[in-house]
Amino acid sequence: MRRMIALMIKVGLLGCGTVGGGVIQLLRANAAYLEARVGAPLDVVRVLVRDPDKERVPELDRARLTTDPEAILGDASIDVVVEVMGGLDPARGHLARAIAAGKQIVTANKMLLAIHGGDLLESAKKRGVDLAFEGAVGGGIPVIRVLRDALASDRIASLAGIVNGTSNYILTRMRADGLSFEAALEEAQAKGYAEADPGLDVDGGDAAHKLVVLAMLAFGARLDDAKISTEGIRGIEPVDHAFADRFGYVVKHLAIAKDKSDGTGAGALELRVHPALVAKDAPLANINGVLNAIAVEGRALGPCLLSGRGAGDLPTAVSVVADIVDVAIAKKSGTAGQSTRAIRLAPRAVAPMDDVEARYYVRFSVYDRPGVLARITGALGERGVSIEQLVQQGRGSTDVPVDVVMMTHETKESAIQGALGAIGKSDFVAKPPRMIRVH
Amino acid sequence: MRRMIALMIKVGLLGCGTVGGGVIQLLRANAAYLEARVGAPLDVVRVLVRDPDKERVPELDRARLTTDPEAILGDASIDVVVEVMGGLDPARGHLARAIAAGKQIVTANKMLLAIHGGDLLESAKKRGVDLAFEGAVGGGIPVIRVLRDALASDRIASLAGIVNGTSNYILTRMRADGLSFEAALEEAQAKGYAEADPGLDVDGGDAAHKLVVLAMLAFGARLDDAKISTEGIRGIEPVDHAFADRFGYVVKHLAIAKDKSDGTGAGALELRVHPALVAKDAPLANINGVLNAIAVEGRALGPCLLSGRGAGDLPTAVSVVADIVDVAIAKKSGTAGQSTRAIRLAPRAVAPMDDVEARYYVRFSVYDRPGVLARITGALGERGVSIEQLVQQGRGSTDVPVDVVMMTHETKESAIQGALGAIGKSDFVAKPPRMIRVH
Repeated sequence: MRRMIALMIKVGLLGCGTVGGGVIQLLRANAAYLEARVGAPLDVVRVLVRDPDKERVPELDRARLTTDPEAILGDASIDVVVEVMGGLDPARGHLARAIAAGKQIVTANKMLLAIHGGDLLESAKKRGVDLAFEGAVGGGIPVIRVLRDALASDRIASLAGIVNGTSNYILTRMRADGLSFEAALEEAQAKGYAEADPGLDVDGGDAAHKLVVLAMLAFGARLDDAKISTEGIRGIEPVDHAFADRFGYVVKHLAIAKDKSDGTGAGALELRVHPALVAKDAPLANINGVLNAIAVEGRALGPCLLSGRGAGDLPTAVSVVADIVDVAIAKKSGTAGQSTRAIRLAPRAVAPMDDVEARYYVRFSVYDRPGVLARITGALGERGVSIEQLVQQGRGSTDVPVDVVMMTHETKESAIQGALGAIGKSDFVAKPPRMIRVH
Repeated sequence: MRRMIALMIKVGLLGCGTVGGGVIQLLRANAAYLEARVGAPLDVVRVLVRDPDKERVPELDRARLTTDPEAILGDASIDVVVEVMGGLDPARGHLARAIAAGKQIVTANKMLLAIHGGDLLESAKKRGVDLAFEGAVGGGIPVIRVLRDALASDRIASLAGIVNGTSNYILTRMRADGLSFEAALEEAQAKGYAEADPGLDVDGGDAAHKLVVLAMLAFGARLDDAKISTEGIRGIEPVDHAFADRFGYVVKHLAIAKDKSDGTGAGALELRVHPALVAKDAPLANINGVLNAIAVEGRALGPCLLSGRGAGDLPTAVSVVADIVDVAIAKKSGTAGQSTRAIRLAPRAVAPMDDVEARYYVRFSVYDRPGVLARITGALGERGVSIEQLVQQGRGSTDVPVDVVMMTHETKESAIQGALGAIGKSDFVAKPPRMIRVH
């Protein structure tokens, strides 16, 4: 009896760090199931690495390692190129070549997508190949797919996400146990949740990259290398968590996108990354530790929340393998390029941060002198900022500063910034005022 | 200048209640966008209704109404049949005919899918058509798609969902304001969240239907008309919410599925629908009102939560229209049937409820006589049930019953049921003991 050999789908892997290793493990562990789904076996025929001697997952056949990108990009028999090396270069060039060669593309590289995603998608569209990137945002949370497919018939009004697990872990530890930022960061590093250089995580750059990728899908916005107002969590102190708690809030680090155009698809988008006060009973307030979550508000759908592990080798690998399955099926069925054609991008302006309207939490560290409160409230009032609540914790003195915390009514960013700038220059102020937007 | 007319995708709608009306509105409101996505306009050419004179959404062209199913099922030019009439018959016969006629199918009918889903999927597979049913579970939450596609490379270990908005609304109101079940149900009916006959919602039948549909996707389990252990929320009293709160829990109504086979895909599944104590800081505990949520535990992915509006015309219509887009694209690109082929179903047994292991909350309403506690704890101890905490609220008397509440350590369902049966027959018991499983 003869057995039909199904045409194999050949995969080339660019990079083999934690995510790449996870991809190899998942493809191996679920080989029979995936073959049945795709209608052909998936075979990782080449793996590009820098150091062929480094230890790798045991499922990897070391004979398939290569240090030469041409062994993948120049091999016409390879159907799918999976980029899990990260960083801008040489990833960008590799993917451009792979697209030009007509290969199906899977990438988990949020930085590359944030800065060159529009270009890459346009060239993929022209060349008739798919470019899938579920692994780029939210680890194993299928948010890209949901924005692309499931909400196809709805218009997204806004989204807000906890998209950086390191920052969320640090804020969670600060809140739960009163740790300082520095102590929580050190703990995160010890547990492997934060890099030795944590800047991209705690200063918000990583979240801003992910926000651009989300906005691309949610609003069809081409935002290559857009300037996003980005604040990290370094300035948050334990006392801010305590005051937030007293007012009924939790401090979270959010990436926020809003379509202010009422769904016409034109006009500016509001895009920003910063710490925010989230009401305790809101779903995002209860996303703790390294978990990620994305809250989407559809015009017809209403609110929808997706949450799960935002990082780690296996969750992200689950997303990458789901993408490999998709692009492999499209390749086999002759519908390659359909998913990229469905993404229609148009440039959208980013609204100036000054125009954002929100309620604000502001904390002043002031010397307790007569008339200080009058001067603060006066400076706020002059710019039309009205105060909803005010708390002075204990009594300071003319030498020892005391915290005065206010919650404002809704006002314009430009107004609050103007007032804080003026107050910050006063002689009664011990250090620059701290401001946190209320979500 | 000549304009190319894209081939139209003709849609026949079976039923035009709230969901059907929402589908017509969304198709109209997003017509240009959907046409660009599909590559052809979507046109609802016929709408089957019982009463052609009833008022409908203004977007509906009344000339397209028909009371004759043949006008849709017998029209060879109709590409997609969308069933939003609900109920078993005549929906089942209509879909069987539509499949036989080679039409692409979209349905939001959970009852039909729970009882005949395996048969329908098998015939769709044989006929090479797609059968999409995102609208059947979780309204606008794209859980079906996530289970089917996004987690394609992972094995699901378990899932637990709040899938009935009516029950969740009632439990939320009981907990927040101490309402009785009856008062909360009445309020839900007044607000339109519950039907005049609320049995399918509050007795758990609707949740059991949805659980079967979820398990079909999550575990490839063919469970047509399976017997699912199902308890509703009628027996929950305000005092149970109060005790749950004291122990750190919230009472929720859950649909639970667990694969006890360690991912081999064989062996029995644990499937059950019942009220449960959920720890206050668990994500499901914070899903309130009419919201739905499904928590999925993937073996590689870890925990993932999806939440959103579980019902209502527009959220469910968003899911139905997303399905219409999918099956229309598949039809246009010649890949119809691919999505149904990807669903591989095999019969799975349902594990006996007696084998379930859990911690239990039990509340006894007893007359305060000497030796009562000893007899209760003795009956539990005889069957190996050990007590973790015990609370007696106030003092009763030999005439006025008092609540004695216990939290057990993990034990078998058969043991706790045996003990409760024995204790329930005692003369010191004022009414049958109340038991709630801890999730």
